Amino acid sequence: MREFALIEQYFSNAGYKRNDVSIAVGDDGAVMQVREGFDLVVTTDTMVQGVHFFPNVDPRALGHKLVTVNVSDLAAMGAEPCWLSLGLTLPDADEAWIKAFAEGLSETADYYNCQLVGGDTCKGPLTLTVCAKGIVPRGKALTRSGAKVGDYLYVTGTLGDAALGLLVEQGQVEISKKHRGPTLQKFHYPTARVALGQALRAIASSCMDVSDGLCGDLPHILKRSNVGAVVDVNKLPMSQALRDTLPMDQALRCALSGGEDYELLFTVPEARRGSLEVLLSPYGVPVTCIGRITGLPGRLELKQGDQPFAYEHSGYQHFA
Amino acid sequence: MREFALIEQYFSNAGYKRNDVSIAVGDDGAVMQVREGFDLVVTTDTMVQGVHFFPNVDPRALGHKLVTVNVSDLAAMGAEPCWLSLGLTLPDADEAWIKAFAEGLSETADYYNCQLVGGDTCKGPLTLTVCAKGIVPRGKALTRSGAKVGDYLYVTGTLGDAALGLLVEQGQVEISKKHRGPTLQKFHYPTARVALGQALRAIASSCMDVSDGLCGDLPHILKRSNVGAVVDVNKLPMSQALRDTLPMDQALRCALSGGEDYELLFTVPEARRGSLEVLLSPYGVPVTCIGRITGLPGRLELKQGDQPFAYEHSGYQHFA
Repeated sequence: MREFALIEQYFSNAGYKRNDVSIAVGDDGAVMQVREGFDLVVTTDTMVQGVHFFPNVDPRALGHKLVTVNVSDLAAMGAEPCWLSLGLTLPDADEAWIKAFAEGLSETADYYNCQLVGGDTCKGPLTLTVCAKGIVPRGKALTRSGAKVGDYLYVTGTLGDAALGLLVEQGQVEISKKHRGPTLQKFHYPTARVALGQALRAIASSCMDVSDGLCGDLPHILKRSNVGAVVDVNKLPMSQALRDTLPMDQALRCALSGGEDYELLFTVPEARRGSLEVLLSPYGVPVTCIGRITGLPGRLELKQGDQPFAYEHSGYQHFA
Repeated sequence: MREFALIEQYFSNAGYKRNDVSIAVGDDGAVMQVREGFDLVVTTDTMVQGVHFFPNVDPRALGHKLVTVNVSDLAAMGAEPCWLSLGLTLPDADEAWIKAFAEGLSETADYYNCQLVGGDTCKGPLTLTVCAKGIVPRGKALTRSGAKVGDYLYVTGTLGDAALGLLVEQGQVEISKKHRGPTLQKFHYPTARVALGQALRAIASSCMDVSDGLCGDLPHILKRSNVGAVVDVNKLPMSQALRDTLPMDQALRCALSGGEDYELLFTVPEARRGSLEVLLSPYGVPVTCIGRITGLPGRLELKQGDQPFAYEHSGYQHFA
């Protein structure tokens, strides 16, 4: 089977069709209309076998996650996800694998009303790159650079569940039957906070998604905004599964340094805290205040109640 | 050195800055303005070591080619290239390699007035994916699907020089000193026909770029337009270097099946042939009529003058 046939069979006719796409797969490029009065938002994420996923990963879950990590970046900008381009390098043309991967990718793109508009497939070590495009009302994109001293620091959902899921998947922890399914589901099939991200455009002063753990990601806001932060680890939102499964010190490590949660981390000025609950209540996603922005550029201070909390973050660094 | 530092050092501050970019590298996504009345055009190309280039390739030439192959796709759509996103998977953080690659990428992006607006870097087998974005006046994108019976078939520049360059690089042919430099230059540093592609919006009924050889690419126009074509191999534009270096049968094979020429292949209705020379003369790029569109869907007929030309095309198929 030839590469063009492979692409056409599984990608070009699958999935959600947007009425702002004039030309999709099959030409030298795709052609789309960006809604008037909107900016274009673009993000790129690469996933490599052995680095981001195990060789035996379920290809459907892989397709799902590849879309989700990209859409999550758009969500963090407050953007509406629209179009995806796929760069796919495959070791061989295993049709069953491609079919399951394409289905995972398609159904997740559908879920976010995204259309796959093009891509390139070639032979080589398994590497997946998605470039996701979205739109946001002109000048309204959420960034990492708007946090101000005194702003309150919030996070959506719960932290550390994906890290727990990885430990469970690797057989490193015992977990109750009740918690096992939902934990693995959250690890393999994360959700991007798209609607919430768009709602935050009216409230947040800065925003990003948590993909490398709170302690890995929050410093990006601090650096870009030239501020510091204090976080009370007692306030970190943790699921009952995480609390029931791990001792508190390990649970905290998952919440502080675990990756792939794809929750939103954002700051809110004091004056807008009042509207927060009202504006976010329709989305059914809990948001938790975990700390506050300080004036010490780049300094992340962890506390446990009133006490300093000693902690050494060790995130994943590809070239460390 | 950590991956974020690597990216920032070599990419975020390098190169051409466009005034339609609000946020570039450093946030969850990049934010750009698409000019009013214009469509967005997107293309993706992946290059893999051992498939698209040799392990010992000059990293500067690699950066150049990666940009060019993507910009060439935009040129074929008649688009103005604007923004690039890079997915870069590297086996290790070899600083000298990254520096030369980044310079090649930057200077070529500059040449086309393109800005690198974001990307993702990680560790793994050397794989490069660029997603290039451009703009085109609304509804004016050139496609592969507009060729009509009776249209004349044209190609820009000369064909087969990159294939000759590959043979020279591999030491498979002897070439005169006079031709050696320009031939290798064309192979390692191809040019995308950007200005010409934009001029063709007023003339061409269909267009694509020749990256997999004339016999590999023309069938895409025939399929998408549901037409056939007859090509006179006597009319194929070949450089003096190609004619001087190879016997005619081998030179023709380079011109018909050699890849990576990045010339534009396009069709022109009879009524617009008159304006062709006038409109294209400012660009200083020769265009040659090599054949005509016929009514036999999908059929590519090669002739040599009045005689049928027997030829078996063997292009590169990643999964064949």
